[in-house]
Amino acid sequence: MPVYLDNAATSFPKPEVVYRAVDEFMRTVGVNAGRGAYKQALEADRIIYETRRSLARLFNIKDVSRIVFTFNVTESLNLAMKGILKPGDHVITSSMEHNAVWRPLKVLEKELGIGITVVQCDSEGNFNPQQVKDALTEKTKLIVLIHASNVTGTVMPIAEVGSIARENNIPLLVDAAQTAGLYPIDVEAMNIDLLAFTGHKGLMGPMGTGGLYIREGILINPLKEGGTGGDSILEHQPDSLPDRYEAGTPNVSGIAGLGAAVKFILNEGVEKIHNKEAALTVYALRKLSELDGITLYGPRDNKSRVGVISLNIMDIPSPKIGHILDEKYGIMVRTGLHCAPCAHRTIGTVDRGTVRLGLGFFNTQEDIDLFVEAVQEIIKKGGC
Amino acid sequence: MPVYLDNAATSFPKPEVVYRAVDEFMRTVGVNAGRGAYKQALEADRIIYETRRSLARLFNIKDVSRIVFTFNVTESLNLAMKGILKPGDHVITSSMEHNAVWRPLKVLEKELGIGITVVQCDSEGNFNPQQVKDALTEKTKLIVLIHASNVTGTVMPIAEVGSIARENNIPLLVDAAQTAGLYPIDVEAMNIDLLAFTGHKGLMGPMGTGGLYIREGILINPLKEGGTGGDSILEHQPDSLPDRYEAGTPNVSGIAGLGAAVKFILNEGVEKIHNKEAALTVYALRKLSELDGITLYGPRDNKSRVGVISLNIMDIPSPKIGHILDEKYGIMVRTGLHCAPCAHRTIGTVDRGTVRLGLGFFNTQEDIDLFVEAVQEIIKKGGC
Repeated sequence: MPVYLDNAATSFPKPEVVYRAVDEFMRTVGVNAGRGAYKQALEADRIIYETRRSLARLFNIKDVSRIVFTFNVTESLNLAMKGILKPGDHVITSSMEHNAVWRPLKVLEKELGIGITVVQCDSEGNFNPQQVKDALTEKTKLIVLIHASNVTGTVMPIAEVGSIARENNIPLLVDAAQTAGLYPIDVEAMNIDLLAFTGHKGLMGPMGTGGLYIREGILINPLKEGGTGGDSILEHQPDSLPDRYEAGTPNVSGIAGLGAAVKFILNEGVEKIHNKEAALTVYALRKLSELDGITLYGPRDNKSRVGVISLNIMDIPSPKIGHILDEKYGIMVRTGLHCAPCAHRTIGTVDRGTVRLGLGFFNTQEDIDLFVEAVQEIIKKGGC
Repeated sequence: MPVYLDNAATSFPKPEVVYRAVDEFMRTVGVNAGRGAYKQALEADRIIYETRRSLARLFNIKDVSRIVFTFNVTESLNLAMKGILKPGDHVITSSMEHNAVWRPLKVLEKELGIGITVVQCDSEGNFNPQQVKDALTEKTKLIVLIHASNVTGTVMPIAEVGSIARENNIPLLVDAAQTAGLYPIDVEAMNIDLLAFTGHKGLMGPMGTGGLYIREGILINPLKEGGTGGDSILEHQPDSLPDRYEAGTPNVSGIAGLGAAVKFILNEGVEKIHNKEAALTVYALRKLSELDGITLYGPRDNKSRVGVISLNIMDIPSPKIGHILDEKYGIMVRTGLHCAPCAHRTIGTVDRGTVRLGLGFFNTQEDIDLFVEAVQEIIKKGGC
């Protein structure tokens, strides 16, 4: 049996209910949402609403309509940053960000002349909230922070940064790509103003789904305009949410699957899911740290990380290790820079990348054992 | 059995192969594409490539990499218009456009000061290419035209406009939301530079899929930046297509379904599909025009229309008719303005909207008969 350890790229497999929800929607409902008034269209509307409601419960969001569906977390982040930042604005971010944050910021820097302060994290990816205070200027209009690094698994002190953001009346945008569904998120307790999430990773839903929570009072411009099914007569997007940010036909079958996935998570309980993954992570880190020839990155303290583990084996190039693991052992991991060169620069691996394990809900201790055994053999053979 | 006549909103049902392709991808491949190097990830890459290749065959596109996948046709149109138009540019469009064209143009008018010339169509939605010539200025940088109206079904003279565009070296952007898969499209013969399409209507694929063909030499800025799986080290989007415009995780399960759908269409043949729908449209128009109390919109000449039929019944409000059709007869149609107030203004129905039939591949003559019988009864009862 192949061993899938790339859940940080996308979770696989999904819960059975997710496959069924997608297939059932496509076969039995199948129609567009928000557009028709016939019963089947209302059923599509209901499915979308239910998914929004489940997500609201998961993230402690009071107003369901403030969750807008997007294509993926990259779109959510682009929407938030481009929708808020104006010429001359200043933004604070970290040195651990994914290209989905860094590249749009570089475009805004070039096109609008925004200023960017990058808070330097330590070599384990840890972020010091004090540095946010130091970086604040009168022009600061946004703080953007990854919740957990997709390279080192390091969890950022969102609640502390949230307090600073709130005190200074600056919106906090959180990239929850690696945490939503896997790690407790409470937008109220953590003072998160904008929560960008993807549907197909920790939330265990289908690809082509994602979303952005936008706190009431935060005004952002849409990234795209088009039909919304209602208020057709207007020459601009309707002001009301979620329509304002949901132009064109949504991915209703994907949202149906996401809804089933989030219900699955709510039934299991995020805490339980988190604890299960944390235990696996502890186990993997312990087993791996016993091996000679392994360099492990990221925090060893389990409280401040998710199940993303980066490592290198001797001086063997990471793509080569990925290839051996796949070919000889049927183990799937991700190698290279993981679309996050800033993070690799921070931990000192930008020239070589890392081998990354992304643990997921369906991984077992046996999967870790198989991986560790394979790594032992690779070390023994010196990568041959 | 309910009768689905809202295929202009989304096609339903889909061919069986589409459901199976989505389910099979999710259950057996399931992994991300363009990111991992393991065999299962390469299988995801292959599925995406195959879908691009099928689309290239369908539209006679020479370079497969010039087809980029998007969330839906609305995104494709936003990407094309916002990626090309710069401050002070001039654009030519028609009075039959959907809000997915009109609303982004109004944003660009407000924010960048672009100039918009709207070519006025006649009351059947017909477009006179000569008017494009008259509207050209030195600042004209784009012509945007709907291929077939989603209100009247009127097909626009794309090839003629394409010739004018080519002669004047101005890119032509075509909104093929109502034609892709249903009506022959040849980007070479028609001189289409940018073809925006959706996957879930005539192409019979899943929602959450769409695309944009970008002719070589046409430079457009991305709408979103983020990870692409390759060239991670760059601080900007890679220049190479399709990566440049495909930031973040694609909807691979959706694309798998779309690939199966396009292969289904290629096997059937677009001509055959078009002829089947044209015959149904002729039949529906003939039967409906025999009824007293019906106002039909759009061209009667079958050569210049697709299977989208708008009508009104006496002075009964269209939503009321939609409601009766659904409740009493199990017939699903779309009513109102169909996200295209410009088109309704053109045909004189902006105050009341229309009842719209969207015929699809799986509709039969019997479906039309049931609709016509229902309409007859509604007329007889005066909408009560």
